[in-house]
Amino acid sequence: MNINGNCLVAQSGGPTTAINASLAGVIERAIKNESIGTIYGAINGIKGFMEKRVLNLSEAFGNHPDLLDKLKISPSMYLGSCRYRLPDIDSDCEDYSIIFGLFKIYDIKYFLYIGGNDSMDTVAKLSLYAKKINYDIHIMGIPKTIDNDLACTDHTPGYGSAAKYIATSVLEVAHDAYIYNVPSVSIIEIMGRNVGWLTAASALARNKYSTAPHLIYLPEKAFNTDNFIADVKHLLTMRKHVIVAISEGIHDENGNYISSQSDNVDQFGHVMLSGAGKYLETLVANEIGCKVRSIELNVLQRCAAHTSSKTDIDESFILGQYAVDRIIEGHSGEMVVINRVENSPYKSEFSTASIHDIANIEKKIPLDWISDSGNDINSELIKYMQPLIEGEIDVPYENGVPSYMPVDHLFGLTE
Amino acid sequence: MNINGNCLVAQSGGPTTAINASLAGVIERAIKNESIGTIYGAINGIKGFMEKRVLNLSEAFGNHPDLLDKLKISPSMYLGSCRYRLPDIDSDCEDYSIIFGLFKIYDIKYFLYIGGNDSMDTVAKLSLYAKKINYDIHIMGIPKTIDNDLACTDHTPGYGSAAKYIATSVLEVAHDAYIYNVPSVSIIEIMGRNVGWLTAASALARNKYSTAPHLIYLPEKAFNTDNFIADVKHLLTMRKHVIVAISEGIHDENGNYISSQSDNVDQFGHVMLSGAGKYLETLVANEIGCKVRSIELNVLQRCAAHTSSKTDIDESFILGQYAVDRIIEGHSGEMVVINRVENSPYKSEFSTASIHDIANIEKKIPLDWISDSGNDINSELIKYMQPLIEGEIDVPYENGVPSYMPVDHLFGLTE
Repeated sequence: MNINGNCLVAQSGGPTTAINASLAGVIERAIKNESIGTIYGAINGIKGFMEKRVLNLSEAFGNHPDLLDKLKISPSMYLGSCRYRLPDIDSDCEDYSIIFGLFKIYDIKYFLYIGGNDSMDTVAKLSLYAKKINYDIHIMGIPKTIDNDLACTDHTPGYGSAAKYIATSVLEVAHDAYIYNVPSVSIIEIMGRNVGWLTAASALARNKYSTAPHLIYLPEKAFNTDNFIADVKHLLTMRKHVIVAISEGIHDENGNYISSQSDNVDQFGHVMLSGAGKYLETLVANEIGCKVRSIELNVLQRCAAHTSSKTDIDESFILGQYAVDRIIEGHSGEMVVINRVENSPYKSEFSTASIHDIANIEKKIPLDWISDSGNDINSELIKYMQPLIEGEIDVPYENGVPSYMPVDHLFGLTE
Repeated sequence: MNINGNCLVAQSGGPTTAINASLAGVIERAIKNESIGTIYGAINGIKGFMEKRVLNLSEAFGNHPDLLDKLKISPSMYLGSCRYRLPDIDSDCEDYSIIFGLFKIYDIKYFLYIGGNDSMDTVAKLSLYAKKINYDIHIMGIPKTIDNDLACTDHTPGYGSAAKYIATSVLEVAHDAYIYNVPSVSIIEIMGRNVGWLTAASALARNKYSTAPHLIYLPEKAFNTDNFIADVKHLLTMRKHVIVAISEGIHDENGNYISSQSDNVDQFGHVMLSGAGKYLETLVANEIGCKVRSIELNVLQRCAAHTSSKTDIDESFILGQYAVDRIIEGHSGEMVVINRVENSPYKSEFSTASIHDIANIEKKIPLDWISDSGNDINSELIKYMQPLIEGEIDVPYENGVPSYMPVDHLFGLTE
């Protein structure tokens, strides 16, 4: 087989602990493929590529398969990220001239973009533009997002590991709360602006002796503070310790976030949230007056690779390999997706879906997977989530802390 | 050897991931000791004992050595906790009458209390009272506190595991921060009212490629917000991402906490803190205007047993065994302590110290272990902390989450 051209891979959006596993899968497969010349990695996503900031991944990993093993279990993004939205392909052609000019210079015939919803928008636009100018390139999206909100795929790489961290942390917070003989309320705030997949994972903390979290509130249903206080008060008549899991994005029936700060907006127009937990903590203190604490899991739920899900990491790695296979076959303008074949024992297969059925669509939890009362989830959702957090990763440690892939090339090229 | 009497063990104060290891050590050793009849565990510390809430630990663990293995690695407190301060032995005798009355009813000849500073105050007072009324009982304190602030011991059980969690989390947060090509400040708020041992452990996150945290502020030195902003601004001229570790208890030269809430006081008169990180986040946003985030590690730093330090857990277990050996020999009115024999390879031995040299004394970081500029620590402190976080625990998992000792006996007896 002759070399057809070079391959570019990049990462974009928010971190997960599985996005490097997909990158490792891409590199592992692309290095072996005879129709691919050099594998380049763009630093800081499509934005960095436009500034010609690229790494030669064939060189970096070619003779170091052990480094791929380490990359596979390392959190956040080896190639760095960006948050950059390309203009409409008809409205502004400057970005596209730069990008396709560089595709030509670097002889890029294959482009794989690993990211979430905003990144798939980039894949969709670049695919359309390539068609418009009749440019010979294959472009493929590889999903990753802890939010699990991408359409056409059973779930997203990164979700299972975040879910495992959340379930583990909620169980440990429950152990922390149970020890005192005074009534207490613990409110755990979990990421999720518009979808509750991550917060729902708190239910996986439940076991034979602990029913925490005792209340779960998701953004899919309107949140009512009066009902919340009534729910907590009712539970406090039956148990001493009430553990509550809430999404950062819970909002009232008019769509107003339950949060003390709702004025800041990021560049995509997403409201920047923080404080739903703190707000409810104050509310419980005032309305009930018992011991109360709020805990924000914060960025650790997306970067705590020391407790990744083996199912998630393995699947993300294979998905990276699979994406290379499909793009070589000629697929383009698509995203690779995961299909659940069996639930117990869990088994998944992969396929592809048109990127235009995915970009800018947000997959929410089906309402019939949420309890009618809106303060818990039902067993269908538990069954869906359970296999995704199974299995543990053997993270290597050095000097008592995890040994991850160095990322100082991000400093060198950008600082 | 004849049975001399029964043994009572209890836990008190805040949770750690190592306090159950000491309990497991106590049970393991006491069960085998022929001069001990029954081992009782008081639920919810000395307060629960006064309400006759006790478990028969000989029955619960006697024929189940596998349960001791599980107890050893489980977080928080199997026996529950209390925060209760006994009155002075001369000022009020009612509590003492109740306690010593129950010692007689349960034929308690040995009492081991596992806890921190406030718990050692209880050990000291009960020892004095026993002497005052000439009551035949041996009382021994076993240290535990993530704060590492007890006198006479090289370090405290629970500290190493919390330190390992903090170092791991700071490294993972750094990976999370490094990916964007825009300047950012991440402020990590770590527990510690008056002592900075936990915050100092953030320095153990540093490795060959990552120098985070780039600034460390401890309560041992006065905090100046102008200097802080100057430190951050200076670093931002050299690097894109600045990671800052602060203690919750940082305060200005007049002793005022750097925090938005400093009015609440707990029953021991400790100021209840939260918000130093949030306060500084707002300050950076206003004074520097770059991307900024604050992260509060919160209770997970004391209950995340899935990443305990093996050194800590093993040492805590052996310390529990050692305490039983000493109390049987006739020691009383003491706390068992850890002495560092060698640093590399790390080796420790145990001895005892008079409880009156320990209770109500707070061990701070020596000022010469902190940098003159007050924004970092020095290598002596690193050398001191390093061995304490070494080694990993094989935590068993079930359904994707850690499998810990059930604690529903805490509900059954108290709810």
